[in-house]
Parts: sequence; structure tokens; C-alpha cells
Amino acid sequence: MNISIIGIGNVGSALATRLFQNGHKIIQLFSRNHQKAEKLALEVDAQPCSNLNNIIAGADLYILAVHDDAIAKVAQSITVGDALVVHSSGATPLGVFEGIVSNYGVFYPLQTFSNAYPPDFSELPICVAANQEKSLQLLIGLAETICPNVYMITEAQREALHVAAVFVNNFSNHLFAMAYDICQQEGLDFNILKPLIRQTIQKIEEGTPATVQTGPAARGDTGTIARHLAWLAQKEPYYKTIYQAMTNSILDSKKNKGGE
Amino acid sequence: MNISIIGIGNVGSALATRLFQNGHKIIQLFSRNHQKAEKLALEVDAQPCSNLNNIIAGADLYILAVHDDAIAKVAQSITVGDALVVHSSGATPLGVFEGIVSNYGVFYPLQTFSNAYPPDFSELPICVAANQEKSLQLLIGLAETICPNVYMITEAQREALHVAAVFVNNFSNHLFAMAYDICQQEGLDFNILKPLIRQTIQKIEEGTPATVQTGPAARGDTGTIARHLAWLAQKEPYYKTIYQAMTNSILDSKKNKGGE
Repeated sequence: MNISIIGIGNVGSALATRLFQNGHKIIQLFSRNHQKAEKLALEVDAQPCSNLNNIIAGADLYILAVHDDAIAKVAQSITVGDALVVHSSGATPLGVFEGIVSNYGVFYPLQTFSNAYPPDFSELPICVAANQEKSLQLLIGLAETICPNVYMITEAQREALHVAAVFVNNFSNHLFAMAYDICQQEGLDFNILKPLIRQTIQKIEEGTPATVQTGPAARGDTGTIARHLAWLAQKEPYYKTIYQAMTNSILDSKKNKGGE
Repeated sequence: MNISIIGIGNVGSALATRLFQNGHKIIQLFSRNHQKAEKLALEVDAQPCSNLNNIIAGADLYILAVHDDAIAKVAQSITVGDALVVHSSGATPLGVFEGIVSNYGVFYPLQTFSNAYPPDFSELPICVAANQEKSLQLLIGLAETICPNVYMITEAQREALHVAAVFVNNFSNHLFAMAYDICQQEGLDFNILKPLIRQTIQKIEEGTPATVQTGPAARGDTGTIARHLAWLAQKEPYYKTIYQAMTNSILDSKKNKGGE
């Protein structure tokens, strides 16, 4: 396919590289930073562009990999006829394009992107949606050329998935950051916790998370919970609030499901 | 060494097996459930026992792998002279033994144990402490025969470590359980999130957690945060409370550290 990519942050640049490597033609790459556009354009044999007015018609697909807030504005700024326009956001409704372009969709790789940690397309899922059936089929076909896990998802599912992704990625990572901080404060090496973290993930590869839940809250050990809360109160109020909220939720889920 | 193990739940039975496999002599195995004691005793060539009064003196080490609440009571119930007595708990102070036995310590494998997911002693850390220097050296030596990562830790460090372990294991797992629940409610396969979970762990193998933090809170995306909170309010109040608490803490850590 002939594809132009608007926005070459972590997601846009990873997609540009992967699509190029898998035989697609990257027509244009847009970044407000012309040098950045030029650098990546060289790698994927595309035309760099730093002015939205210079985005040319004629590509089959325009991927808007820009900040959520900028999607509508960018869609308004480009003139692409009835070519397919998609965004790559987990959080932005498909309807953002309504009344702006006629043929639109979502091309959402569900992964945490950063330049330092390139995504593994051999396992990450790509979620697609579109306002026309033929565009949906086209996006599925395209996604399948770059990764094995392609999901058609509804708007409601994408919304749920984005919240769930915040829980499993952003919030897990923040738990690790808090633990790192606690270790630092006590002169402990954070590496001591890494086997436990690895085992935590290993366990959910085989069982469902609720069935492998352990710890003071899961076993209703109120003495330990009280000691931990008292300890945290003297350290960091935010951590105590999180400890209490997580504990309440685990206790509640046990109650509802008759124990674990 | 000659070792007796009181309590053969997940921790006690894993230790019994590992110690036996690494050349130690298991003298007695205690469980209130005699059949259970007999079964494991056969595997590790030990004497089964289901009455604390029948615990015999003469072992070099007694490992109390019982519930936190039962440690003091069990220590009072056995007569072991000046043999070394340890518990395997992350949460119980060393002082639990004070006035009960003269020679005591902690032998705490920092891992989440369950029979279905046997621990990998080749990477889990064992934390040790004792009230006598020679017992501390003995515990270090023993731990080194069954795993490569042995840490001497102070009481304050063990307390911190236990709280940190709850954060990285119990609470992470509960985040996964909430995400699983959210997926179920929307007819989504939880497996869609697993590559993201794996990548979350991968990232902290190389960077510190705070430096790899991403997501709406880390980038101060108040629009997405508000949408997520509104969505969660209609679903599950406990989840919303957790979302809010985690978000506040991430926003605060950004403020204190000048952004990420």
C-alpha cells in the first residue's frame, strides 16, 4: 500500500519503519521538526514534510499518529479526497473524524512505545475499526502484513481496552516505581524484587489473575494490613492511599467471589 | 545440615524439597494434617509428625514455615535447647522469638509461593537475619547452598521489603485482575493485553521504573484522565478510587521530580 504518516513520535516512527520493512511504500512523513522528518524519511525512502499544507493527495492511507488533541485539527488541515484516514490512538473516538473526512478508521497498536524500547511487532496486537466495511477489510489486511495479532474492536471495546491498558501498564509501572522508591529509602537494591516481579507475570500466563491472587488482603490478614498502613503513613501519604484502595478492592473482590 | 521443618504449606514444602535435593538431611516434617506430612516425608526421606509435642531435639535448625500468627505459639510448643529456630515470614519481626528461644533468626525466601507454580530457586532471593553472628553466618551458608541470591537484611529493611513486595506482586496482580474483569465485561480476550504486560516488565529490566513511566497521568493528559474516571464511575467504584489514587501519585511524583 501507499501510505503517508503524519506525526513520527514513538508510534508513528515505529509504524513507518515496520510498514516499510514489510514492503509498503511510505509516500510522505510529516513532522513539525523538518530535520527529524528528513532523518526518518531517508531510512524508509519517503518524502519528508514539515508543513501540513504540503501533504499531497494520492496515498491509499493516511495514518495520523499525533497527540489525541491534534487529531481533528490535522484531519481538517489535509486534503486527501476519499482516501482512508486513520488515527493510532486508543483513547480517541472514531467520531473525531465525522464531518471532516468521509472514509476513516482506527489503527491502534496496543503497546507502550518509546524510542529506547522498540516494540516487538511479532507479538503486539493491532486493533482496527473503520466507518466503512471495505476500509475495515483494508486495515485488517494491512495490519496482518506487519503483525500476527489483529483485532476488530468496537468503540466501546476500545474505550475499555484503553482503561485496562492504563491499569496493566501505567499503574503496574507506578507500583514498581513506588517499590523502587521504598527500596532506595532503606538502602535496598531494587533488583532484589525482580524475580518476584517476573514470577507475578509468569503466574498469569497460566491462571487468571484473580485465581492466583496472594498477599495480606487476599488472605484477610488484617494485622499485617494494619502494620503496613501504619508504616506507610510515616513514609508517603500517596502510597498509603493506594495501599488502602487496592486492599479494599481485593477484599471486596474476595467477598463477591466467595474467596480465592 | 540437619533440619526440621514445621509447617509444610507452599513455603515449607518448597524449602523441604529444595533443601533435600541439595544434600541436607530433613529430620522431621510437621503438619497438622498427618497424611500431608506423610506424603512429603516420603519424598524427602524425613519423619512425618502431626503433634508438636513430638518434635524432637537434635536438629541443627528448625524452620517455622507457619502462618505469621502461629509463629510465637509454635516456638513456645517445641523444646529444642539452643538449636537455631527461624521463621520464613517477611512480615514478622525477629523479636517474635524473644524470651521464647535463645538462638533465632529469619530465613525469608522473597517470592510468591503456590503449589501450582513452583518457585525457581535459581533466581529467587533469600533474606536472612539472626540474633547471633554465628547463626547469621550459618543461615547465609545454608541459603547459599540452595540459591545464588542471599541478602543479609536488617529488621527495618525487611519491613520495607515486605511492603514493597505487596506493591509489586499482590497489587500488580490485582491490577491485572481488574483489567481481566474489564475485558470480560466488554467481551474482550484478556490475552490481548499480555504483550503489553510483558513489555511493561521488559522495560524495567533496563531503566528505572520512574524513567519509563508513560500514560495519561505521566503526560498530564487531564482530558483522558477525566474520560477514564467517568467511564469507571459507571462500572465499578473501587476501580475508580484506585485509578484516582494512582493518578494523583503519578502526578505528584512528576511534580517532585520535575517531569519524566
